[in-house]
Amino acid sequence: HSFIDDKFIQKEAKYISTELEDFIPSNEIILVKKTNPVSNIQKNRISLKLSLNKNSMEIDETVQLRLDDEKSKESFGNQSVQDTVVREKYILSKNFPKLRLIPYTGQLKNKTYVLLEGTNESDEDGFFILDQHAASERINKEKFLNAYETSQFSLQKLISPLKIGVSPSEKIFIEDNLNEIKKLGFKFEHFGGNTFILRGIPTIMGKIPDINIIKEVISDITNIGKDKSFSEIKEEIINYLACHKSIRGGDELTLKDIRKIIIELGKCKNPYHCAHGRPTLRFFSFKELDKLFKRIV
Amino acid sequence: HSFIDDKFIQKEAKYISTELEDFIPSNEIILVKKTNPVSNIQKNRISLKLSLNKNSMEIDETVQLRLDDEKSKESFGNQSVQDTVVREKYILSKNFPKLRLIPYTGQLKNKTYVLLEGTNESDEDGFFILDQHAASERINKEKFLNAYETSQFSLQKLISPLKIGVSPSEKIFIEDNLNEIKKLGFKFEHFGGNTFILRGIPTIMGKIPDINIIKEVISDITNIGKDKSFSEIKEEIINYLACHKSIRGGDELTLKDIRKIIIELGKCKNPYHCAHGRPTLRFFSFKELDKLFKRIV
Repeated sequence: HSFIDDKFIQKEAKYISTELEDFIPSNEIILVKKTNPVSNIQKNRISLKLSLNKNSMEIDETVQLRLDDEKSKESFGNQSVQDTVVREKYILSKNFPKLRLIPYTGQLKNKTYVLLEGTNESDEDGFFILDQHAASERINKEKFLNAYETSQFSLQKLISPLKIGVSPSEKIFIEDNLNEIKKLGFKFEHFGGNTFILRGIPTIMGKIPDINIIKEVISDITNIGKDKSFSEIKEEIINYLACHKSIRGGDELTLKDIRKIIIELGKCKNPYHCAHGRPTLRFFSFKELDKLFKRIV
Repeated sequence: HSFIDDKFIQKEAKYISTELEDFIPSNEIILVKKTNPVSNIQKNRISLKLSLNKNSMEIDETVQLRLDDEKSKESFGNQSVQDTVVREKYILSKNFPKLRLIPYTGQLKNKTYVLLEGTNESDEDGFFILDQHAASERINKEKFLNAYETSQFSLQKLISPLKIGVSPSEKIFIEDNLNEIKKLGFKFEHFGGNTFILRGIPTIMGKIPDINIIKEVISDITNIGKDKSFSEIKEEIINYLACHKSIRGGDELTLKDIRKIIIELGKCKNPYHCAHGRPTLRFFSFKELDKLFKRIV
Protein backbone atom coordinates (compact mmCIF):
# COMPACT_ATOMS: atom_id res chain seq x y z
CA HIS A 1 0.00 0.00 0.00
CA SER A 2 1.09 3.54 -0.69
CA PHE A 3 0.92 6.27 1.91
CA ILE A 4 -2.32 7.45 0.31
CA ASP A 5 -3.93 4.05 0.55
CA ASP A 6 -2.77 3.60 4.14
CA LYS A 7 -4.23 6.94 5.05
CA PHE A 8 -7.62 6.04 3.68
CA ILE A 9 -7.65 2.61 5.17
CA GLN A 10 -7.11 4.21 8.57
CA LYS A 11 -9.77 6.76 7.88
CA GLU A 12 -12.30 4.27 6.71
CA ALA A 13 -11.87 2.21 9.84
CA LYS A 14 -13.35 5.10 11.77
CA TYR A 15 -16.44 5.30 9.63
CA ILE A 16 -17.08 1.78 8.52
CA SER A 17 -20.20 1.23 10.62
CA THR A 18 -23.37 1.51 8.63
CA GLU A 19 -25.57 0.07 11.37
CA LEU A 20 -29.08 1.41 11.44
CA GLU A 21 -29.02 1.88 15.22
CA ASP A 22 -26.01 4.23 14.96
CA PHE A 23 -28.01 6.84 13.21
CA ILE A 24 -28.55 10.11 15.03
CA PRO A 25 -29.49 13.05 12.89
CA SER A 26 -26.96 15.87 12.97
CA ASN A 27 -28.79 18.91 11.72
CA GLU A 28 -26.39 21.66 12.53
CA ILE A 29 -24.72 23.41 9.69
CA ILE A 30 -22.35 26.30 9.81
CA LEU A 31 -21.38 28.61 7.01
CA VAL A 32 -18.42 30.89 7.48
CA LYS A 33 -16.38 33.33 5.52
CA LYS A 34 -12.74 32.53 4.92
CA THR A 35 -11.74 35.66 6.78
CA ASN A 36 -12.48 36.00 10.45
CA PRO A 37 -13.84 32.50 10.83
CA VAL A 38 -14.46 32.57 14.57
CA SER A 39 -16.94 35.40 14.69
CA ASN A 40 -18.71 34.07 11.65
CA ILE A 41 -19.00 30.59 13.04
CA GLN A 42 -20.64 31.97 16.15
CA LYS A 43 -22.95 34.26 14.24
CA ASN A 44 -24.03 31.58 11.83
CA ARG A 45 -24.37 28.93 14.47
CA ILE A 46 -27.21 30.90 15.92
CA SER A 47 -28.96 31.80 12.70
CA LEU A 48 -28.42 28.58 10.80
CA LYS A 49 -29.51 25.74 13.02
CA LEU A 50 -31.46 23.95 10.38
CA SER A 51 -34.02 21.27 10.83
CA LEU A 52 -33.77 18.38 8.44
CA ASN A 53 -37.02 19.16 6.69
CA LYS A 54 -36.37 22.80 6.01
CA ASN A 55 -32.83 22.48 4.71
CA SER A 56 -33.08 23.45 1.14
CA MET A 57 -35.19 26.51 1.78
CA GLU A 58 -33.06 27.93 4.55
CA ILE A 59 -29.77 27.05 2.94
CA ASP A 60 -30.77 28.93 -0.17
CA GLU A 61 -31.09 32.08 1.87
CA THR A 62 -27.46 32.12 2.95
CA VAL A 63 -24.83 34.10 1.11
CA GLN A 64 -23.04 30.94 0.15
CA LEU A 65 -25.98 29.49 -1.66
CA ARG A 66 -27.78 32.51 -2.94
CA LEU A 67 -25.70 32.27 -6.07
CA ASP A 68 -27.81 30.45 -8.59
CA ASP A 69 -26.02 29.28 -11.69
CA GLU A 70 -28.89 30.17 -13.96
CA LYS A 71 -29.38 33.58 -12.44
CA SER A 72 -25.75 34.45 -12.64
CA LYS A 73 -25.67 33.63 -16.32
CA GLU A 74 -28.43 36.17 -16.85
CA SER A 75 -27.02 38.95 -14.70
CA PHE A 76 -23.53 38.31 -15.81
CA GLY A 77 -21.77 41.48 -14.81
CA ASN A 78 -21.84 40.29 -11.24
CA GLN A 79 -20.49 36.82 -11.75
CA SER A 80 -16.84 37.56 -11.16
CA VAL A 81 -17.56 38.86 -7.69
CA GLN A 82 -19.97 36.04 -6.86
CA ASP A 83 -17.57 33.48 -8.18
CA THR A 84 -14.77 34.85 -6.03
CA VAL A 85 -16.99 34.86 -2.98
CA VAL A 86 -18.09 31.29 -3.53
CA ARG A 87 -14.61 30.00 -4.14
CA GLU A 88 -13.03 31.79 -1.19
CA LYS A 89 -15.67 30.76 1.31
CA TYR A 90 -15.56 27.43 3.03
CA ILE A 91 -18.66 25.42 3.67
CA LEU A 92 -18.26 24.20 7.21
CA SER A 93 -20.08 21.51 9.06
CA LYS A 94 -19.21 19.96 12.41
CA ASN A 95 -16.61 17.18 12.23
CA PHE A 96 -16.40 17.47 8.50
CA PRO A 97 -13.67 18.87 6.26
CA LYS A 98 -13.79 22.56 5.39
CA LEU A 99 -14.53 22.38 1.69
CA ARG A 100 -14.64 24.95 -1.04
CA LEU A 101 -14.74 24.98 -4.81
CA ILE A 102 -11.39 24.92 -6.49
CA PRO A 103 -10.35 28.28 -7.87
CA TYR A 104 -11.02 29.50 -11.35
CA THR A 105 -7.56 28.59 -12.62
CA GLY A 106 -7.33 25.18 -10.95
CA GLN A 107 -4.31 26.36 -8.94
CA LEU A 108 -4.63 24.94 -5.45
CA LYS A 109 -4.38 27.22 -2.47
CA ASN A 110 -0.76 26.49 -1.61
CA LYS A 111 -0.04 27.90 -5.09
CA THR A 112 2.21 24.98 -5.89
CA TYR A 113 -0.02 22.58 -7.82
CA VAL A 114 -2.50 23.04 -10.65
CA LEU A 115 -5.34 20.60 -11.32
CA LEU A 116 -6.10 19.85 -14.96
CA GLU A 117 -8.04 17.21 -16.83
CA GLY A 118 -7.48 15.37 -20.03
CA THR A 119 -6.34 12.25 -21.78
CA ASN A 120 -2.93 10.68 -21.40
CA GLU A 121 -0.71 9.16 -24.09
CA SER A 122 -2.38 5.76 -23.63
CA ASP A 123 -5.72 7.41 -24.39
CA GLU A 124 -6.97 7.09 -20.82
CA ASP A 125 -9.14 9.89 -19.44
CA GLY A 126 -8.47 11.35 -16.04
CA PHE A 127 -7.09 14.32 -14.20
CA PHE A 128 -3.59 15.66 -13.83
CA ILE A 129 -1.71 17.47 -11.12
CA LEU A 130 0.98 19.84 -12.33
CA ASP A 131 3.88 20.97 -10.12
CA GLN A 132 4.28 24.51 -11.38
CA HIS A 133 7.90 24.95 -10.35
CA ALA A 134 9.04 21.57 -11.65
CA ALA A 135 7.31 22.22 -14.97
CA SER A 136 8.73 25.71 -15.30
CA GLU A 137 12.21 24.47 -14.48
CA ARG A 138 11.99 21.74 -17.13
CA ILE A 139 10.82 24.26 -19.73
CA ASN A 140 13.65 26.65 -18.90
CA LYS A 141 16.22 23.87 -18.79
CA GLU A 142 15.39 22.73 -22.30
CA LYS A 143 15.24 26.30 -23.60
CA PHE A 144 18.61 27.14 -22.10
CA LEU A 145 20.15 23.88 -23.20
CA ASN A 146 18.95 24.46 -26.73
CA ALA A 147 20.19 28.02 -26.68
CA TYR A 148 23.55 26.81 -25.42
CA GLU A 149 23.86 24.02 -27.97
CA THR A 150 22.94 26.31 -30.84
CA SER A 151 25.01 29.18 -29.41
CA GLN A 152 21.90 31.31 -29.26
CA PHE A 153 22.05 32.08 -25.57
CA SER A 154 21.21 35.76 -25.49
CA LEU A 155 23.72 37.95 -23.75
CA GLN A 156 22.96 41.45 -22.64
CA LYS A 157 25.74 43.96 -22.07
CA LEU A 158 25.94 45.51 -18.65
CA ILE A 159 26.00 49.31 -18.81
CA SER A 160 28.21 49.34 -15.74
CA PRO A 161 30.55 46.35 -15.92
CA LEU A 162 31.04 44.59 -12.61
CA LYS A 163 34.30 43.75 -10.89
CA ILE A 164 34.06 40.21 -9.51
CA GLY A 165 36.62 38.84 -7.09
CA VAL A 166 36.93 35.06 -7.16
CA SER A 167 38.91 32.40 -5.36
CA PRO A 168 42.07 30.96 -6.95
CA SER A 169 40.33 27.75 -7.99
CA GLU A 170 37.36 29.68 -9.39
CA LYS A 171 39.80 31.88 -11.30
CA ILE A 172 41.28 28.84 -13.01
CA PHE A 173 37.83 27.55 -13.90
CA ILE A 174 36.71 30.86 -15.43
CA GLU A 175 39.95 31.46 -17.31
CA ASP A 176 39.94 27.96 -18.74
CA ASN A 177 36.34 28.24 -19.90
CA LEU A 178 35.86 31.86 -20.92
CA ASN A 179 34.26 30.94 -24.27
CA GLU A 180 32.08 28.16 -22.89
CA ILE A 181 30.86 30.47 -20.14
CA LYS A 182 30.19 33.15 -22.75
CA LYS A 183 27.98 30.65 -24.59
CA LEU A 184 25.90 30.61 -21.39
CA GLY A 185 25.53 34.39 -21.63
CA PHE A 186 28.22 35.52 -19.17
CA LYS A 187 30.95 37.67 -20.67
CA PHE A 188 34.02 37.79 -18.42
CA GLU A 189 37.33 39.58 -18.97
CA HIS A 190 40.33 38.89 -16.80
CA PHE A 191 41.18 42.11 -14.94
CA GLY A 192 44.26 40.89 -13.06
CA GLY A 193 44.91 38.67 -10.07
CA ASN A 194 41.75 36.95 -8.94
CA THR A 195 39.50 39.68 -10.35
CA PHE A 196 37.33 39.58 -13.45
CA ILE A 197 35.26 42.20 -15.20
CA LEU A 198 31.76 40.97 -16.00
CA ARG A 199 30.56 42.78 -19.15
CA GLY A 200 27.51 40.70 -20.07
CA ILE A 201 24.92 38.46 -18.42
CA PRO A 202 22.29 36.13 -19.87
CA THR A 203 19.12 37.88 -21.06
CA ILE A 204 17.11 35.32 -19.11
CA MET A 205 18.29 36.91 -15.88
CA GLY A 206 15.92 39.77 -16.59
CA LYS A 207 16.04 43.21 -18.12
CA ILE A 208 17.29 45.14 -15.13
CA PRO A 209 19.04 42.57 -12.95
CA ASP A 210 19.74 43.38 -9.35
CA ILE A 211 23.49 43.60 -8.73
CA ASN A 212 23.27 41.33 -5.70
CA ILE A 213 21.44 38.67 -7.68
CA ILE A 214 24.13 38.80 -10.36
CA LYS A 215 26.85 38.39 -7.75
CA GLU A 216 24.99 35.51 -6.15
CA VAL A 217 24.56 33.75 -9.49
CA ILE A 218 28.22 34.22 -10.42
CA SER A 219 29.28 32.95 -7.04
CA ASP A 220 26.99 29.91 -7.28
CA ILE A 221 28.10 29.09 -10.83
CA THR A 222 31.79 29.37 -10.08
CA ASN A 223 31.24 27.23 -7.02
CA ILE A 224 29.56 24.59 -9.15
CA GLY A 225 32.46 24.83 -11.61
CA LYS A 226 35.51 24.92 -9.42
CA ASP A 227 37.82 21.89 -9.53
CA LYS A 228 35.78 20.39 -12.36
CA SER A 229 35.93 20.47 -16.13
CA PHE A 230 33.35 22.51 -17.95
CA SER A 231 31.80 19.52 -19.72
CA GLU A 232 31.22 17.94 -16.32
CA ILE A 233 29.24 20.86 -15.00
CA LYS A 234 27.64 22.59 -17.96
CA GLU A 235 24.34 20.73 -17.42
CA GLU A 236 24.49 21.53 -13.72
CA ILE A 237 24.98 25.22 -14.49
CA ILE A 238 22.09 25.17 -16.94
CA ASN A 239 19.95 23.45 -14.31
CA TYR A 240 20.94 26.13 -11.86
CA LEU A 241 20.02 28.93 -14.25
CA ALA A 242 16.75 27.17 -15.17
CA CYS A 243 15.80 26.77 -11.53
CA HIS A 244 16.81 30.32 -10.73
CA LYS A 245 14.59 31.73 -13.46
CA SER A 246 11.54 29.50 -12.92
CA ILE A 247 8.10 30.06 -11.53
CA ARG A 248 8.20 28.99 -7.93
CA GLY A 249 5.83 27.26 -5.57
CA GLY A 250 3.84 30.09 -4.02
CA ASP A 251 3.67 32.17 -7.20
CA GLU A 252 0.10 32.96 -8.19
CA LEU A 253 -0.66 31.87 -11.74
CA THR A 254 -3.18 33.29 -14.18
CA LEU A 255 -5.05 31.23 -16.75
CA LYS A 256 -2.60 32.55 -19.31
CA ASP A 257 0.41 31.48 -17.26
CA ILE A 258 -1.04 27.98 -16.91
CA ARG A 259 -1.79 27.62 -20.59
CA LYS A 260 1.72 28.80 -21.42
CA ILE A 261 3.25 26.23 -19.07
CA ILE A 262 1.17 23.41 -20.58
CA ILE A 263 2.08 24.41 -24.12
CA GLU A 264 5.76 24.82 -23.44
CA LEU A 265 5.99 21.70 -21.30
CA GLY A 266 4.36 19.73 -24.09
CA LYS A 267 7.15 20.78 -26.41
CA CYS A 268 9.86 19.53 -24.09
CA LYS A 269 11.78 16.42 -24.96
CA ASN A 270 11.50 15.22 -21.38
CA PRO A 271 8.35 16.88 -20.11
CA TYR A 272 7.79 14.61 -17.12
CA HIS A 273 10.68 15.64 -14.92
CA CYS A 274 12.18 18.90 -13.73
CA ALA A 275 15.87 19.64 -14.22
CA HIS A 276 16.61 17.81 -10.98
CA GLY A 277 14.51 14.73 -11.75
CA ARG A 278 11.36 15.53 -9.78
CA PRO A 279 8.03 14.85 -11.52
CA THR A 280 6.28 17.72 -13.28
CA LEU A 281 2.93 16.05 -13.87
CA ARG A 282 0.98 13.28 -12.20
CA PHE A 283 -1.91 11.47 -13.81
CA PHE A 284 -4.90 9.86 -12.12
CA SER A 285 -7.06 7.98 -14.59
CA PHE A 286 -10.79 7.73 -14.07
CA LYS A 287 -10.25 3.99 -13.91
CA GLU A 288 -7.87 4.50 -10.98
CA LEU A 289 -10.42 6.79 -9.32
CA ASP A 290 -13.10 4.14 -9.88
CA LYS A 291 -10.87 1.73 -7.97
CA LEU A 292 -10.12 4.28 -5.26
CA PHE A 293 -13.87 4.80 -4.79
CA LYS A 294 -14.53 1.05 -5.08
CA ARG A 295 -16.78 1.49 -8.11
CA ILE A 296 -14.70 -1.27 -9.69
CA VAL A 297 -12.40 -3.84 -8.11
CA HIS B 1 3.26 0.16 -4.03
CA SER B 2 -0.26 1.09 -5.02
CA PHE B 3 -1.51 0.89 -8.59
CA ILE B 4 -0.93 4.64 -8.87
CA ASP B 5 2.68 4.40 -7.76
CA ASP B 6 3.36 1.47 -10.03
CA LYS B 7 1.95 3.38 -12.93
CA PHE B 8 4.25 6.29 -12.37
CA ILE B 9 7.29 4.19 -11.77
CA GLN B 10 6.73 2.60 -15.17
CA LYS B 11 6.18 5.99 -16.72
CA GLU B 12 9.21 7.54 -15.16
CA ALA B 13 11.43 4.78 -16.45
CA LYS B 14 10.68 6.00 -19.94
CA TYR B 15 11.71 9.55 -19.20
CA ILE B 16 14.42 9.22 -16.63
CA SER B 17 17.29 10.26 -18.90
CA THR B 18 18.36 13.82 -18.35
CA GLU B 19 21.54 13.50 -20.38
CA LEU B 20 22.61 16.65 -22.15
CA GLU B 21 23.31 14.82 -25.39
CA ASP B 22 19.74 13.52 -25.61
CA PHE B 23 18.36 16.94 -26.12
CA ILE B 24 16.70 17.61 -29.44
CA PRO B 25 14.40 20.59 -29.58
CA SER B 26 10.79 19.73 -30.37
CA ASN B 27 9.23 22.93 -31.56
CA GLU B 28 6.00 21.72 -32.98
CA ILE B 29 2.85 22.58 -31.14
CA ILE B 30 -0.66 21.80 -32.13
CA LEU B 31 -3.80 23.44 -30.89
CA VAL B 32 -7.12 21.82 -31.65
CA LYS B 33 -10.74 22.25 -30.84
CA LYS B 34 -12.47 19.52 -28.90
CA THR B 35 -14.84 19.00 -31.80
CA ASN B 36 -13.58 17.78 -35.14
CA PRO B 37 -10.02 17.28 -33.95
CA VAL B 38 -8.60 15.84 -37.16
CA SER B 39 -9.23 18.73 -39.49
CA ASN B 40 -8.11 21.19 -36.85
CA ILE B 41 -4.91 19.33 -36.15
CA GLN B 42 -4.04 19.49 -39.81
CA LYS B 43 -4.96 23.12 -40.16
CA ASN B 44 -3.05 24.16 -37.08
CA ARG B 45 -0.07 22.02 -37.85
CA ILE B 46 0.55 24.18 -40.89
CA SER B 47 -0.04 27.55 -39.30
CA LEU B 48 1.51 26.91 -35.91
CA LYS B 49 4.95 25.52 -36.48
CA LEU B 50 6.65 27.69 -33.94
CA SER B 51 10.29 28.40 -33.58
CA LEU B 52 11.62 28.28 -30.05
CA ASN B 53 12.37 31.99 -29.94
CA LYS B 54 9.05 33.24 -31.16
CA ASN B 55 6.81 31.07 -29.00
CA SER B 56 5.14 33.51 -26.76
CA MET B 57 4.25 35.93 -29.51
CA GLU B 58 2.81 33.38 -31.89
CA ILE B 59 1.05 31.38 -29.21
CA ASP B 60 -0.72 34.50 -28.08
CA GLU B 61 -2.27 34.82 -31.49
CA THR B 62 -4.12 31.52 -31.29
CA VAL B 63 -7.70 31.28 -30.13
CA GLN B 64 -6.65 29.20 -27.18
CA LEU B 65 -4.34 31.82 -25.81
CA ARG B 66 -5.89 35.04 -26.94
CA LEU B 67 -7.84 35.07 -23.71
CA ASP B 68 -5.97 37.33 -21.37
CA ASP B 69 -7.07 37.22 -17.76
CA GLU B 70 -6.73 40.93 -17.28
CA LYS B 71 -8.52 41.81 -20.48
CA SER B 72 -11.39 39.51 -19.75
CA LYS B 73 -11.92 41.11 -16.38
CA GLU B 74 -12.34 44.43 -18.16
CA SER B 75 -14.61 43.28 -20.98
CA PHE B 76 -16.53 40.99 -18.74
CA GLY B 77 -19.64 40.34 -20.76
CA ASN B 78 -17.67 38.00 -22.96
CA GLN B 79 -16.00 35.95 -20.27
CA SER B 80 -18.54 33.18 -20.04
CA VAL B 81 -18.07 32.33 -23.69
CA GLN B 82 -14.29 32.63 -23.52
CA ASP B 83 -14.16 30.56 -20.38
CA THR B 84 -16.23 27.82 -21.95
CA VAL B 85 -14.04 27.84 -25.04
CA VAL B 86 -10.86 27.62 -23.02
CA ARG B 87 -12.12 24.84 -20.79
CA GLU B 88 -13.52 22.72 -23.61
CA LYS B 89 -10.47 22.96 -25.81
CA TYR B 90 -7.52 20.71 -25.33
CA ILE B 91 -4.00 21.94 -25.65
CA LEU B 92 -2.27 19.28 -27.69
CA SER B 93 1.37 18.64 -28.23
CA LYS B 94 3.01 15.60 -29.76
CA ASN B 95 3.54 12.67 -27.39
CA PHE B 96 2.07 14.64 -24.52
CA PRO B 97 -1.24 14.31 -22.70
CA LYS B 98 -4.20 16.26 -24.04
CA LEU B 99 -4.73 18.74 -21.24
CA ARG B 100 -7.41 21.27 -20.50
CA LEU B 101 -8.49 23.38 -17.59
CA ILE B 102 -10.92 21.74 -15.24
CA PRO B 103 -14.47 22.99 -15.65
CA TYR B 104 -16.00 25.84 -13.76
CA THR B 105 -17.73 23.56 -11.27
CA GLY B 106 -14.81 21.20 -10.67
CA GLN B 107 -16.88 18.29 -12.00
CA LEU B 108 -14.59 16.11 -14.09
CA LYS B 109 -15.57 15.18 -17.59
CA ASN B 110 -16.90 11.72 -16.80
CA LYS B 111 -19.43 13.58 -14.61
CA THR B 112 -18.77 11.21 -11.74
CA TYR B 113 -16.22 13.03 -9.59
CA VAL B 114 -15.94 16.60 -8.34
CA LEU B 115 -12.63 18.19 -7.34
CA LEU B 116 -12.69 20.44 -4.28
CA GLU B 117 -10.11 21.92 -1.96
CA GLY B 118 -10.00 22.52 1.74
CA THR B 119 -8.84 21.43 5.14
CA ASN B 120 -9.55 18.06 6.68
CA GLU B 121 -10.51 17.27 10.27
CA SER B 122 -6.83 17.00 11.25
CA ASP B 123 -6.31 20.55 9.98
CA GLU B 124 -4.29 19.45 6.96
CA ASP B 125 -4.73 21.38 3.73
CA GLY B 126 -5.22 19.59 0.47
CA PHE B 127 -7.73 18.69 -2.18
CA PHE B 128 -10.68 16.36 -2.17
CA ILE B 129 -12.36 14.17 -4.73
CA LEU B 130 -16.08 13.67 -4.27
CA ASP B 131 -17.98 10.73 -5.75
CA GLN B 132 -21.26 12.44 -6.56
CA HIS B 133 -23.41 9.33 -6.53
CA ALA B 134 -21.92 7.89 -3.35
CA ALA B 135 -22.38 11.25 -1.60
CA SER B 136 -25.93 11.66 -2.79
CA GLU B 137 -26.81 8.12 -1.74
CA ARG B 138 -25.40 8.70 1.75
CA ILE B 139 -27.38 11.92 2.09
CA ASN B 140 -30.59 10.24 0.99
CA LYS B 141 -29.97 7.22 3.17
CA GLU B 142 -29.67 9.31 6.31
CA LYS B 143 -32.66 11.47 5.34
CA PHE B 144 -34.82 8.43 4.70
CA LEU B 145 -33.59 6.65 7.80
CA ASN B 146 -34.37 9.69 9.91
CA ALA B 147 -37.77 10.05 8.32
CA TYR B 148 -38.46 6.38 8.97
CA GLU B 149 -37.28 6.48 12.59
CA THR B 150 -39.32 9.58 13.35
CA SER B 151 -42.29 8.32 11.29
CA GLN B 152 -42.02 11.39 9.10
CA PHE B 153 -41.58 9.57 5.81
CA SER B 154 -43.85 11.54 3.49
CA LEU B 155 -46.46 9.52 1.70
CA GLN B 156 -48.32 10.80 -1.31
CA LYS B 157 -51.67 9.33 -2.27
CA LEU B 158 -51.94 7.91 -5.75
CA ILE B 159 -54.86 9.38 -7.66
CA SER B 160 -55.26 6.04 -9.46
CA PRO B 161 -54.45 3.28 -6.99
CA LEU B 162 -52.43 0.44 -8.50
CA LYS B 163 -53.21 -3.26 -8.43
CA ILE B 164 -50.01 -5.15 -7.67
CA GLY B 165 -49.75 -8.88 -8.04
CA VAL B 166 -47.11 -10.50 -5.87
CA SER B 167 -45.72 -13.96 -5.25
CA PRO B 168 -46.97 -16.02 -2.26
CA SER B 169 -43.84 -15.33 -0.22
CA GLU B 170 -43.97 -11.62 -1.06
CA LYS B 171 -47.63 -11.61 -0.04
CA ILE B 172 -46.71 -12.92 3.41
CA PHE B 173 -43.96 -10.31 3.78
CA ILE B 174 -46.25 -7.40 2.85
CA GLU B 175 -49.18 -8.60 4.97
CA ASP B 176 -46.94 -9.13 7.98
CA ASN B 177 -45.38 -5.68 7.68
CA LEU B 178 -48.14 -3.40 6.38
CA ASN B 179 -47.49 -0.75 9.02
CA GLU B 180 -43.70 -0.89 8.80
CA ILE B 181 -43.93 -0.60 5.03
CA LYS B 182 -46.33 2.32 5.42
CA LYS B 183 -43.68 4.06 7.57
CA LEU B 184 -41.49 3.86 4.46
CA GLY B 185 -44.18 5.67 2.49
CA PHE B 186 -45.88 2.74 0.74
CA LYS B 187 -49.58 2.30 1.54
CA PHE B 188 -50.79 -1.18 0.65
CA GLU B 189 -54.26 -2.71 1.10
CA HIS B 190 -54.86 -6.40 0.66
CA PHE B 191 -57.21 -6.82 -2.31
CA GLY B 192 -57.55 -10.61 -2.17
CA GLY B 193 -55.39 -13.58 -3.10
CA ASN B 194 -51.90 -12.43 -4.04
CA THR B 195 -53.03 -8.98 -5.10
CA PHE B 196 -52.61 -5.70 -3.24
CA ILE B 197 -53.89 -2.20 -3.91
CA LEU B 198 -51.14 0.39 -3.65
CA ARG B 199 -52.72 3.68 -2.52
CA GLY B 200 -49.66 5.70 -1.58
CA ILE B 201 -45.96 5.92 -2.43
CA PRO B 202 -43.07 7.84 -0.81
CA THR B 203 -42.89 11.51 -1.76
CA ILE B 204 -39.20 11.00 -2.50
CA MET B 205 -40.12 8.95 -5.55
CA GLY B 206 -41.08 12.19 -7.25
CA LYS B 207 -44.19 14.24 -7.86
CA ILE B 208 -45.45 12.42 -10.94
CA PRO B 209 -43.91 8.96 -10.72
CA ASP B 210 -43.88 6.74 -13.78
CA ILE B 211 -46.08 3.69 -13.27
CA ASN B 212 -43.34 1.35 -14.50
CA ILE B 213 -40.86 2.79 -12.03
CA ILE B 214 -43.34 2.26 -9.19
CA LYS B 215 -43.87 -1.36 -10.23
CA GLU B 216 -40.12 -1.90 -10.47
CA VAL B 217 -39.55 -0.42 -7.01
CA ILE B 218 -42.32 -2.50 -5.45
CA SER B 219 -40.99 -5.62 -7.09
CA ASP B 220 -37.43 -4.88 -5.93
CA ILE B 221 -38.52 -4.12 -2.38
CA THR B 222 -40.67 -7.20 -1.99
CA ASN B 223 -37.83 -9.22 -3.41
CA ILE B 224 -35.47 -7.79 -0.81
CA GLY B 225 -38.07 -8.53 1.86
CA LYS B 226 -39.32 -12.00 1.00
CA ASP B 227 -38.44 -14.79 3.43
CA LYS B 228 -36.92 -12.28 5.86
CA SER B 229 -38.18 -10.31 8.83
CA PHE B 230 -38.73 -6.62 8.35
CA SER B 231 -36.10 -5.61 10.90
CA GLU B 232 -33.57 -7.61 8.91
CA ILE B 233 -34.22 -5.77 5.69
CA LYS B 234 -35.45 -2.29 6.61
CA GLU B 235 -31.96 -0.81 6.19
CA GLU B 236 -31.55 -2.62 2.89
CA ILE B 237 -34.85 -1.21 1.64
CA ILE B 238 -33.85 2.27 2.75
CA ASN B 239 -30.51 1.82 0.97
CA TYR B 240 -32.40 0.75 -2.12
CA LEU B 241 -34.67 3.79 -2.01
CA ALA B 242 -31.70 6.09 -1.30
CA CYS B 243 -29.76 4.69 -4.25
CA HIS B 244 -32.81 4.82 -6.49
CA LYS B 245 -33.37 8.50 -5.74
CA SER B 246 -29.75 9.67 -5.89
CA ILE B 247 -27.73 11.74 -8.29
CA ARG B 248 -25.90 9.30 -10.53
CA GLY B 249 -22.51 9.15 -12.16
CA GLY B 250 -23.03 10.89 -15.49
CA ASP B 251 -25.43 13.53 -14.16
CA GLU B 252 -24.23 17.04 -14.86
CA LEU B 253 -23.99 19.13 -11.69
CA THR B 254 -24.30 22.88 -11.29
CA LEU B 255 -22.41 24.91 -8.69
CA LYS B 256 -25.60 24.94 -6.67
CA ASP B 257 -25.96 21.15 -6.82
CA ILE B 258 -22.38 20.75 -5.64
CA ARG B 259 -22.75 23.15 -2.74
CA LYS B 260 -25.93 21.41 -1.71
CA ILE B 261 -24.21 18.02 -1.73
CA ILE B 262 -21.32 19.34 0.38
CA ILE B 263 -23.64 20.94 2.90
CA GLU B 264 -25.92 17.95 3.23
CA LEU B 265 -23.08 15.45 3.30
CA GLY B 266 -21.45 17.45 6.08
CA LYS B 267 -24.56 16.97 8.17
CA CYS B 268 -24.52 13.22 7.80
CA LYS B 269 -23.55 11.07 10.75
CA ASN B 270 -21.44 8.89 8.47
CA PRO B 271 -20.47 11.22 5.64
CA TYR B 272 -17.54 9.19 4.33
CA HIS B 273 -19.37 6.19 2.91
CA CYS B 274 -22.35 5.65 0.66
CA ALA B 275 -25.22 3.41 1.74
CA HIS B 276 -23.34 0.41 0.42
CA GLY B 277 -20.00 1.26 2.05
CA ARG B 278 -18.18 2.87 -0.87
CA PRO B 279 -16.22 6.06 -0.11
CA THR B 280 -17.87 9.41 -0.81
CA LEU B 281 -14.82 11.62 -0.42
CA ARG B 282 -11.10 11.14 -0.82
CA PHE B 283 -8.51 13.51 0.58
CA PHE B 284 -5.04 14.23 -0.78
CA SER B 285 -3.08 16.48 1.55
CA PHE B 286 -0.53 18.91 0.18
CA LYS B 287 2.00 17.00 2.22
CA GLU B 288 1.09 13.83 0.33
CA LEU B 289 1.36 15.72 -2.94
CA ASP B 290 4.75 17.04 -1.87
CA LYS B 291 5.82 13.43 -1.42
CA LEU B 292 4.26 12.35 -4.71
CA PHE B 293 6.21 15.12 -6.46
CA LYS B 294 9.33 14.37 -4.41
CA ARG B 295 9.44 17.86 -2.93
CA ILE B 296 9.82 16.10 0.43
CA VAL B 297 10.87 12.56 1.25
